[in-house]
Amino acid sequence: MEKVDHIGIAVKSIEEALPYYIETLGLKLIHIEEVPSEKVRVAFIDSGNLNLELLQPLDETSTIHSFIEKKGEGIHHIAFGVSNIQIRLNELKEKGVRLIQETPKAGAHGAQVAFIHPKASGGVLYELCDKSGGAK
Amino acid sequence: MEKVDHIGIAVKSIEEALPYYIETLGLKLIHIEEVPSEKVRVAFIDSGNLNLELLQPLDETSTIHSFIEKKGEGIHHIAFGVSNIQIRLNELKEKGVRLIQETPKAGAHGAQVAFIHPKASGGVLYELCDKSGGAK
Repeated sequence: MEKVDHIGIAVKSIEEALPYYIETLGLKLIHIEEVPSEKVRVAFIDSGNLNLELLQPLDETSTIHSFIEKKGEGIHHIAFGVSNIQIRLNELKEKGVRLIQETPKAGAHGAQVAFIHPKASGGVLYELCDKSGGAK
Repeated sequence: MEKVDHIGIAVKSIEEALPYYIETLGLKLIHIEEVPSEKVRVAFIDSGNLNLELLQPLDETSTIHSFIEKKGEGIHHIAFGVSNIQIRLNELKEKGVRLIQETPKAGAHGAQVAFIHPKASGGVLYELCDKSGGAK
């Protein structure tokens, strides 16, 4: 776990949420992309030492839609930046940590990502995020 | 909003939560302190570019106790590092942002802190944290 790469925040609408971050808080929008595999639209906001990622569900089958239905809009996950994500996942598995993905999948911005089960982490959803494949 | 200073995580017991962060995730404990004014015990964990702050309620009147009762253990707030916190709070108030504190109060580690109301921030509890008074 080298550092916190980003914090994921579930929102119903990026369009409605963005003015607060950009105009009110004075942060900078980096870019917006869709991640069809995750059924989300993602806005990356530069907050100095890490990005805030606003996550908007693309449809009702998105896990972000379920999250908002269950808990309301708010903080969804914390992502640690790592290199060699498969080795990190193997290490966690060997330590008996419950993982949602034991092999990484494609995330936003070309990263390889995997989630630790929140039951292993005291209710916090932690993501491992490996951008060493050439992405930022 | 210069950067994210820390992420606050509500836990029932720092003693029970710490081994996961230190032994399993390999992060480093900085120190533990009590903040009687907030009725919390706080463990600061170095995660590279920011701290994770584990927040344990000291008694049932702590807002962290209420949070855990209502939502369970998990991410409680995101704190932005700022300087001139009173000026920042005045600017937010002038923009019509609903604040929990309009003047800062003493937080952990000698910082001056104030919270933005989560209804202003799409369900996210943001703290402003000013350590420029001589604390780290």
